[in-house]
Amino acid sequence: MTRFKLTIEYDGGGFVGWQRQDNGPSIQQSLEDAVFRITGETVLVQGAGRTDAGVHALGQVAHVDVEKAIEAEKLKDAINYHLKPAPIAVLSSAVAPQDFHARFSATGRAYLYRIVNRRAPLTVDHGRAWLVNAALDSDAMHDAAQVLLGKHDFSTFRASLCQAQSPVKTLDRLSIHRVGEEIQVIAEARSFLHHMVRNIVGTLRLVGEGKWSKDDVREALEARDRTKGGPTAPPDGLYLTRVSY
Amino acid sequence: MTRFKLTIEYDGGGFVGWQRQDNGPSIQQSLEDAVFRITGETVLVQGAGRTDAGVHALGQVAHVDVEKAIEAEKLKDAINYHLKPAPIAVLSSAVAPQDFHARFSATGRAYLYRIVNRRAPLTVDHGRAWLVNAALDSDAMHDAAQVLLGKHDFSTFRASLCQAQSPVKTLDRLSIHRVGEEIQVIAEARSFLHHMVRNIVGTLRLVGEGKWSKDDVREALEARDRTKGGPTAPPDGLYLTRVSY
Repeated sequence: MTRFKLTIEYDGGGFVGWQRQDNGPSIQQSLEDAVFRITGETVLVQGAGRTDAGVHALGQVAHVDVEKAIEAEKLKDAINYHLKPAPIAVLSSAVAPQDFHARFSATGRAYLYRIVNRRAPLTVDHGRAWLVNAALDSDAMHDAAQVLLGKHDFSTFRASLCQAQSPVKTLDRLSIHRVGEEIQVIAEARSFLHHMVRNIVGTLRLVGEGKWSKDDVREALEARDRTKGGPTAPPDGLYLTRVSY
Repeated sequence: MTRFKLTIEYDGGGFVGWQRQDNGPSIQQSLEDAVFRITGETVLVQGAGRTDAGVHALGQVAHVDVEKAIEAEKLKDAINYHLKPAPIAVLSSAVAPQDFHARFSATGRAYLYRIVNRRAPLTVDHGRAWLVNAALDSDAMHDAAQVLLGKHDFSTFRASLCQAQSPVKTLDRLSIHRVGEEIQVIAEARSFLHHMVRNIVGTLRLVGEGKWSKDDVREALEARDRTKGGPTAPPDGLYLTRVSY
């Protein structure tokens, strides 16, 4: 039995999310089906992050145990062959130690959230970014975001369905910068609560529009109450970009 | 009667191309239908470049004459409203002089061609870039591309269906650079022949793979014979980025 570490990219648009569910196609199921077609084995593909429906990944990581003798590169190419035409691709594959666990061994996760800030509808970026019509002050968003850095009880930015044992997380980076009409939010932490990045982005949008101040963000955080935070940003703009070990 | 200059973005994936045709939806027809719904007028939307099926635009320019009194900004918003859910958006709208002609007044056109150079299939970039598996030397591609600069008979890179009166064009810029696994080709000229950018990119790919030298590109150009050029790159990676006046 060999454990493989897979790095995976996908367009989450047509999926119910990473996790296998009864109500539609998932990334996890697609990968497990591909491995089954190659090996005849019913496997569990364990991901580092359970991305929601519509959320994308440029660097999701997963592990899978395979009985059949197969080289890492061949496994990658074979999975990619069997995944077609689903918009999922294994970018790299490597043999991992038996105690490597994609989720529990992870020491860091990085997300990118893309906002396109203009009046005109999205075309080539449809489903791949959040269109915000009102002019956003990205510098004010970045400044306000800094009050969220460090170790906090993030209940204000936690989905009601979140299964984490504790709402306390340590946010290592939250950078907002503008490139033309695009605003990019980069968030890094050891781990995140369910919807945490999307709830933070939805709150920072209020700052960008001038409706909220930096102090409002601080007060919302300290309230530890989801109803005191801003709305949840849509999944379209969110990308899991990197998992560190 | 007012003439408007429109700057337009679109995902060309689901269209037969810019130009109105009987065999499927076109960008031009979609825009003309939207203007009809706003004004009740049957108009001609004249584009600067007739992009092919599957080719995208980030800055196509068109002009249209409207009898109804309407402000440029309102026309833009109304067209965008009526275009939904088609992946076409008017980015800007301005009143233009009566003698402004989107196609004939243009003094320059710029295209971007995106190649993703890796083994894994495309996911978020599916339909928006050309996937090339073999490792490409982008520096060699850039170097070879420079023999195409200037005024030449580009028959080697001209589609058989091309309607241009002359195969002589002046290529002002042809830059190739790599950003991670992406190779971007930027081409600028007053005007291009049909399929010219795609035929050039298909030829430069041969250079990137080491199959062709810079001299081979020069000889192909001098042959003035389409059969001496490389294959046509797919439309997916091509974007009309700017039209100058």
